[in-house]
Amino acid sequence: MRIGILGGGQLGRMLALAAVPMGHEVVVLAQSPDEPACAVARPLIGSFDDDLVIERLRQSVDVVTYEFENVPRAAVEGLAAHLPVRPGVRSLVVASDRWNEKTTFHALGIGTAPFAQVDDEDSLRAAVDRIGLPAVLKTRRLGYDGKGQRVLRTEADVPGAFAAIGGVPAILEGFVRFTRELSILGVRGVDGTIVTYPLVENTHRSGILFRTDAPAPHVSDALATRAREAISRLLVELDHVGVLALELFDREGELLANEIAPRVHNTGHFTIEGADTSQFEAHVRAITGEPLPPLTLRGRSVMINLVGAIPPRELILAIPGAHLHLYGKTERPGRKVGHITICAPDDAALDDRVARVIAIVDTNRDGPA
Amino acid sequence: MRIGILGGGQLGRMLALAAVPMGHEVVVLAQSPDEPACAVARPLIGSFDDDLVIERLRQSVDVVTYEFENVPRAAVEGLAAHLPVRPGVRSLVVASDRWNEKTTFHALGIGTAPFAQVDDEDSLRAAVDRIGLPAVLKTRRLGYDGKGQRVLRTEADVPGAFAAIGGVPAILEGFVRFTRELSILGVRGVDGTIVTYPLVENTHRSGILFRTDAPAPHVSDALATRAREAISRLLVELDHVGVLALELFDREGELLANEIAPRVHNTGHFTIEGADTSQFEAHVRAITGEPLPPLTLRGRSVMINLVGAIPPRELILAIPGAHLHLYGKTERPGRKVGHITICAPDDAALDDRVARVIAIVDTNRDGPA
Repeated sequence: MRIGILGGGQLGRMLALAAVPMGHEVVVLAQSPDEPACAVARPLIGSFDDDLVIERLRQSVDVVTYEFENVPRAAVEGLAAHLPVRPGVRSLVVASDRWNEKTTFHALGIGTAPFAQVDDEDSLRAAVDRIGLPAVLKTRRLGYDGKGQRVLRTEADVPGAFAAIGGVPAILEGFVRFTRELSILGVRGVDGTIVTYPLVENTHRSGILFRTDAPAPHVSDALATRAREAISRLLVELDHVGVLALELFDREGELLANEIAPRVHNTGHFTIEGADTSQFEAHVRAITGEPLPPLTLRGRSVMINLVGAIPPRELILAIPGAHLHLYGKTERPGRKVGHITICAPDDAALDDRVARVIAIVDTNRDGPA
Repeated sequence: MRIGILGGGQLGRMLALAAVPMGHEVVVLAQSPDEPACAVARPLIGSFDDDLVIERLRQSVDVVTYEFENVPRAAVEGLAAHLPVRPGVRSLVVASDRWNEKTTFHALGIGTAPFAQVDDEDSLRAAVDRIGLPAVLKTRRLGYDGKGQRVLRTEADVPGAFAAIGGVPAILEGFVRFTRELSILGVRGVDGTIVTYPLVENTHRSGILFRTDAPAPHVSDALATRAREAISRLLVELDHVGVLALELFDREGELLANEIAPRVHNTGHFTIEGADTSQFEAHVRAITGEPLPPLTLRGRSVMINLVGAIPPRELILAIPGAHLHLYGKTERPGRKVGHITICAPDDAALDDRVARVIAIVDTNRDGPA
């Protein structure tokens, strides 16, 4: 099948790397031929807003998917009128807007932190009065990796906060004192079949994912079931086809939904080596209408993001079980340039190898020495 | 690093699919942009005999490798004068000529079937007298997948046999009544480090590899050691850098070398899912001078080649643990168009899944129904 991907970043790159071996052809709509996915797919260079480019994409492929949720809605709707776009417009509309996300969680009985709509200084004031402090003010759209957010700790932080995030539609969220951050990835097929990976545990640094432990340790059956039920309800509600990621806070065994991503997700990168079927292959199977396999893990694994800097590769590759993934991007502070997935035959070896990887990564943070 | 690959077939494709995620750029010298590797690498289209094309490749990459052993020697030597070609010319010269192969085995104390040089009808006669019948007459060069071979069962088969294989330099090999066919893949780094995969067992159909079982069952420690020693001696003797495959006959515990391939090999395709590190990544690490990992298997797995026809993909993908690889080639009798690697949590499940895969493949052999 001919698959079109909106977006040429590392997610598109890893999708193409999974799709090509299965015999698919991949066309990537990217802004520049230097984008990561263009190395392993047929690039179509142009703007998502350019009708002619969208038309060329439409004529080149059988199905379209996307690798980020802020793709212009008009482009997606234009394509969806002519061929399958998977996941569909509804997943985009909900996932690209925090207010839509939170109200969808609420409607499905999935717990969240308290939240309120903020459209101006007055509604921010009202929201703070209702929710209390500390709280987090977040833009409804275009926020990721900690951008477009502002923590309000005391009353003194409230005036000017709305202007500081750009004076755009926002929501205020009550501060959640969570034990840890988890995520679960689910995949839904064209026929409605749903499969899920186990819960994983995520650690952030400066608002950017740093580490994923798969599977998350100390997960009770009840917790696992609640997470599976939550993502399954979301997949059905959105009529989602493909991978959906759900980020959760674990508050002493109570799960609170944080946000969803209607796509393959950084917290699922470990699945390339850590699972029988990667999230990328699972997504490709789903959007092409093919059978979904059970998403079994190959034991424990740990993913470490490379943010801003690529460590000396020979040091990483000398560690057994360390799988280096680089995205072909230049180093820049705060930029995800690659990741490392670490596997091992037993827990002691895994912990040792992870410690060695982190020591190397930490010695070489944010720019070459 | 920028890696040049001579040849655009499925081996080049899988090499590129392993090299790109590690952050390398790949240029493939292919005869046509439709060749399998061109989908995931920068294609350079032209003839191996064209000096200008070879010059362009030389200027585009840092290291060169090849995906088949019949690449013109002049092209390789021209490149090797300017940049590393790995494996080197010596591996090519030995592996592309059955006489050189067999005499190298002999010199290293690696057992073979009896063999003799055949350059004309007279030397064929002398070879038959010395070795006896049945025997196999094989062209020294350009033979693969059973082509360029002729089995001589009785005296009546001898006259005309030399002409029938094209009247080109050949060797006569004594018929080996073997118990089974095995192969071992070894990898040698720039620094001389050697790592090997375990022995695997191979089953052919009509002279073309059909099935690989990894690891080979019922391998004694002594057998494993002899195989490892044989490939290690070859790797050192050839000053080989990269993957080297050694095909062996198991004659009731005695190993006889059949042939080598100085490259990634069809009997190693299972390593994509069946080993911690695939033969393709291992080759890339070797030729780029990076550390070689231990080549540990992830339990048992079985590879089934797709020859001539692609079975209904939805049937294959419905089998858990079945990993479908297609090369983007059109179906044609005798042509390798893909392979399937089957993994499972235990032996019973593996045997069941393999039987299901083979039933589907056999129902759809050599062309669509």
